[in-house]
Amino acid sequence: MLILMHPNATSEDVDRVADRVKELGYVPHKMPGAQRVAVAVTGNAGPVDPAAFTMLPGVVEALRISKPWKLASRETHPHDTQVSLPGPGGTPSRIGGGVFGIIAGPCAVESREQTVGCAKSVVAAGARFLRGGAYKPRTSPYSFQGLKLEGLKILAEARAATGLPVTTEVVDPAHVAEIAEYADILQIGTRNAQNFALLEAVAKAGKPVLLKRGMSSTIEEFLMAAEYIIKGGNYQVILCERGIRTFEPMTRNTVDLGSIPLIKRLSHLPIVVDPSHSTGDALSVPAVARAALAVGADGIMVDVHPDPARALCDGPQSLRPEQFADLMGTLRKMADVLGVTID
Amino acid sequence: MLILMHPNATSEDVDRVADRVKELGYVPHKMPGAQRVAVAVTGNAGPVDPAAFTMLPGVVEALRISKPWKLASRETHPHDTQVSLPGPGGTPSRIGGGVFGIIAGPCAVESREQTVGCAKSVVAAGARFLRGGAYKPRTSPYSFQGLKLEGLKILAEARAATGLPVTTEVVDPAHVAEIAEYADILQIGTRNAQNFALLEAVAKAGKPVLLKRGMSSTIEEFLMAAEYIIKGGNYQVILCERGIRTFEPMTRNTVDLGSIPLIKRLSHLPIVVDPSHSTGDALSVPAVARAALAVGADGIMVDVHPDPARALCDGPQSLRPEQFADLMGTLRKMADVLGVTID
Amino acid sequence: MLILMHPNATSEDVDRVADRVKELGYVPHKMPGAQRVAVAVTGNAGPVDPAAFTMLPGVVEALRISKPWKLASRETHPHDTQVSLPGPGGTPSRIGGGVFGIIAGPCAVESREQTVGCAKSVVAAGARFLRGGAYKPRTSPYSFQGLKLEGLKILAEARAATGLPVTTEVVDPAHVAEIAEYADILQIGTRNAQNFALLEAVAKAGKPVLLKRGMSSTIEEFLMAAEYIIKGGNYQVILCERGIRTFEPMTRNTVDLGSIPLIKRLSHLPIVVDPSHSTGDALSVPAVARAALAVGADGIMVDVHPDPARALCDGPQSLRPEQFADLMGTLRKMADVLGVTID
Amino acid sequence: MLILMHPNATSEDVDRVADRVKELGYVPHKMPGAQRVAVAVTGNAGPVDPAAFTMLPGVVEALRISKPWKLASRETHPHDTQVSLPGPGGTPSRIGGGVFGIIAGPCAVESREQTVGCAKSVVAAGARFLRGGAYKPRTSPYSFQGLKLEGLKILAEARAATGLPVTTEVVDPAHVAEIAEYADILQIGTRNAQNFALLEAVAKAGKPVLLKRGMSSTIEEFLMAAEYIIKGGNYQVILCERGIRTFEPMTRNTVDLGSIPLIKRLSHLPIVVDPSHSTGDALSVPAVARAALAVGADGIMVDVHPDPARALCDGPQSLRPEQFADLMGTLRKMADVLGVTID
Repeated sequence: MLILMHPNATSEDVDRVADRVKELGYVPHKMPGAQRVAVAVTGNAGPVDPAAFTMLPGVVEALRISKPWKLASRETHPHDTQVSLPGPGGTPSRIGGGVFGIIAGPCAVESREQTVGCAKSVVAAGARFLRGGAYKPRTSPYSFQGLKLEGLKILAEARAATGLPVTTEVVDPAHVAEIAEYADILQIGTRNAQNFALLEAVAKAGKPVLLKRGMSSTIEEFLMAAEYIIKGGNYQVILCERGIRTFEPMTRNTVDLGSIPLIKRLSHLPIVVDPSHSTGDALSVPAVARAALAVGADGIMVDVHPDPARALCDGPQSLRPEQFADLMGTLRKMADVLGVTID
Repeated sequence: MLILMHPNATSEDVDRVADRVKELGYVPHKMPGAQRVAVAVTGNAGPVDPAAFTMLPGVVEALRISKPWKLASRETHPHDTQVSLPGPGGTPSRIGGGVFGIIAGPCAVESREQTVGCAKSVVAAGARFLRGGAYKPRTSPYSFQGLKLEGLKILAEARAATGLPVTTEVVDPAHVAEIAEYADILQIGTRNAQNFALLEAVAKAGKPVLLKRGMSSTIEEFLMAAEYIIKGGNYQVILCERGIRTFEPMTRNTVDLGSIPLIKRLSHLPIVVDPSHSTGDALSVPAVARAALAVGADGIMVDVHPDPARALCDGPQSLRPEQFADLMGTLRKMADVLGVTID
Repeated sequence: MLILMHPNATSEDVDRVADRVKELGYVPHKMPGAQRVAVAVTGNAGPVDPAAFTMLPGVVEALRISKPWKLASRETHPHDTQVSLPGPGGTPSRIGGGVFGIIAGPCAVESREQTVGCAKSVVAAGARFLRGGAYKPRTSPYSFQGLKLEGLKILAEARAATGLPVTTEVVDPAHVAEIAEYADILQIGTRNAQNFALLEAVAKAGKPVLLKRGMSSTIEEFLMAAEYIIKGGNYQVILCERGIRTFEPMTRNTVDLGSIPLIKRLSHLPIVVDPSHSTGDALSVPAVARAALAVGADGIMVDVHPDPARALCDGPQSLRPEQFADLMGTLRKMADVLGVTID
Repeated sequence: MLILMHPNATSEDVDRVADRVKELGYVPHKMPGAQRVAVAVTGNAGPVDPAAFTMLPGVVEALRISKPWKLASRETHPHDTQVSLPGPGGTPSRIGGGVFGIIAGPCAVESREQTVGCAKSVVAAGARFLRGGAYKPRTSPYSFQGLKLEGLKILAEARAATGLPVTTEVVDPAHVAEIAEYADILQIGTRNAQNFALLEAVAKAGKPVLLKRGMSSTIEEFLMAAEYIIKGGNYQVILCERGIRTFEPMTRNTVDLGSIPLIKRLSHLPIVVDPSHSTGDALSVPAVARAALAVGADGIMVDVHPDPARALCDGPQSLRPEQFADLMGTLRKMADVLGVTID
């Protein structure tokens, strides 16, 4: 931490800051400059709270100089984390560590026929994980809220039929145990990205967690949310970029692909891209999925629906199964030239 | 709803849309224009889901033409909602319906002495409600997380000492019953503004709810979150503008005061402003509190701390008790000329 | 400037940074810490460019520790700047230095009758400056672009009839001389807030400049734009907050009133608020104008139109003259209790 | 246009709206619904201004139902526009129409040696256009502002040495003629994206224009800026996505790659991506350049500098020549599998 003093700060002001630094167990270093004095703080193991200094007389600002995440950081864990689960055909389904993982399925579980049928078509096209919402967080209380327990059972049936491990969203800490019984990956949605009670609850379930970025989370907040889960004892976290909220009204969200190479340098965790929720438009989904692979993401999570025009949720962003199969063909060719593995 | 067809859409495309409208129980109206045909939908009681149409061939866009909230709407409930609780000195503490309510207290409950002392100083200066966090949602898992149950007991003690009704944040549906035992108003924080499981849980507690706007919630999403609570059986909702997230780095948030007159026209619910969390800077708090009164808000919620430099949370934004008393003096003079009541 | 080294940086890396600092004429200070070394830079008169260091091996980040504006800064110019021009009734029209200035008039000059009539009604209600656009920057090339020279002549006529000094927008450096002949204040619109060629051109005209904040300008960029004008020799700059662009679609812009107290501390320049362009809605204009006074701004700039329903530009945000007179009455009562002067 | 009436609007209100529609030369259609009446407007050739109706009594909202751009629209011009100029080795340098164009060079022209040397290295690696700033718009008036005319002459020399057509930024309408003498493509920077005087000036120069998206321009505003240039008589417009401004502080801008497939559907104009200015970080540039190709853009514009650590402008985002050559190798392999041409 570096504490900047006002040009008019007195030497008493500077001494008071230095004393406070010592009182907190750190070491102060006074640095006289042309315009002002600054006080550098060393001796701290983790981050120092700026608020301890900014109210003292003569202090202009307290700048943090180390990143606040530790467990999610690549500095402390240089090797890629890979999530690996038993997958179709007796081979593992993997995400991260050089493997581009493919998650596909309906936005919401609507019926046995729709979900099992969809799972069969996506596994045939090469998907390695099944997505599907049983508990749906919806902006309006009047919208379809998901099939809940019935939906979980359908997902488990779809897994039995295809071998695909299942990821599904958790919206209440009270549901974690039940959902962990049926699902393989617990998913945290964008609206719960800083629901810390929920993050702590899923951390303890002993299953990998797919953590979506909050629609207005900074990269720092995104990694700090992952830090909550890892601190709770669970290193099996898959980050998911699903678009952030900006001023642009013509796309559902703005997919922040430019953050991916940065996040890969900052953290050892794998990160996948959701081209469906980020664009909200099936016509743009294949292009953004290709870009996710090209930009260095570790996978994609795609909405696929057998009849998008009749989907109960997010139909306009869902690919039809044959469109998904086309996309897979292109991704495999790209992966070859980019030196990436698709299981 | 108005469904716009592509200039090249065929008459079969238009017929298919009209049939789908009828299938859903509504009435289609074909409207031929110079460049394209549109199909208007009538006969619907509530909102129609655009997704039912946007995937049909030839459809360009489906525009909603009525607002999706009903219970929170001023169209259906023209009169102001007022929240009124037993307050200090045997008189009610009120927010809304022409009364500008004053909520003050520490960001976090840190100790009995700090909280009860702070409550006494704010009631002496004219506050009518006490705020104080017992469960603190923090971006970092390494930051102070609140005193929890111990904090609730301290808040109840502060109420006993001053008569001030207490508002405190709820972060987990499992805590609702316990917190409702100690607090008078249940508070939903910005990170949980679309945590629908939590909204449904607080709706059932039989206590007023103070609902903060999500840091990236649109006005529509903010009112829809209120709709969840009202639909759950609780009309006693106080909205709270606490700043939204924008590109500006020099203020903690951007306080959206320009939304207040609009929200007052759209909804019957009272809305208060939090000048402390929105600016993050005690030097700006009195100015924004005055602006909240001038712009037509129904109250303010202000952080006050006896010793901001040593606060465990958000010290730089807390007023000292004497600064709060000064602010109250100015607000009372302004309220007189604006024709607003301060209890 | 503080240069942070990577935890794995070698002592050669640190020496190389120190050498570069010396090469640029500054003084390096090596600061060993628990996790990493930092190098502080002193001896610089103005800001140091981070780019000189961030590409060197082992460097993580270079943090600026002084603000980049000088001439616009309150640190170097502690006293308020006031703009004062000959006004109606032989008394000066002023903005800043404790005086809340009132600028009113039509968004666009449409005709002699409309503009002169509007000027008469606003001066009668207490306005001290006339606004009116002759050159209109419009998003669409198909929208009304202003009466241009003819409009300037009408504005001069309105000034002759009322005594009101005139502010009008400049959109091209080539127009500066002509507009300076007719107008008293040269206005820079939000879309030209970082059109540096235009800023340099208006700086030389010898007239006060009203500088609108860019719709996505940070406070720093806003003050740096003012710095361009002052550096060009003109200290008579009036800042104008007119709303910033955010994710919210229901208001035209988000008026950043919370930035006003901060800008007043950072700079000696006066700042006015435009409640019309920021909200885009006449129903919200009086509330935001009151809030501007309460938050500590130095004035307002309001659209007033005799017949808003027939305005060629921005009618929905224009007050009718009688609504403007009502607003003036409220502002005068508020100014009394707030200790502010309205000429 | 669809005009929505309030549920309480009278039949007189509706008639008044219909009369106004007729008065403007259009045809009104009254549509009674369950909750309210709407009035549809047909018979208009281009867009109707909502402001003509929103102030009438009983009107809630006026919704535009056709897009406001015409000349830039793919509906009216279904075929891709391609920009083609004489290039190195006597073959054309092209952008658009299935060709992925490569623009590379220094952010700013600093010296003959740096620019000509850089041009030689990028043409050797496969670039087809040279970029380089002679007039530099800088946030601070104290930063390097470019070599101006001297810089233009150096660019022309670099073209003579390599055959690369040159693109350079124009910041003042008064410079257009001079710059058009030396450069092949006139570039509009992000800060001038809605500087309509400048857009009209470059439109008349008879050279292709590279138009950067404003940092807070919506897609609609971006296309409307292009419309200004085309309406001025110049269809040779290259759009450039260079990142938009969002809340995220860790990347310089947020590159909006998700908008590319949408813009390609809306407009016939080619669009290139600037991975350098959007990320501000050379470590992320190759990843974003690959993603630009994968997402369907028509080219990239990349900063390359022989010695980024000593660049006078934007060094941290510049690739070294050998990094650029590596990137070109990867792009060519990807282009093969994606069916795209790189000249």
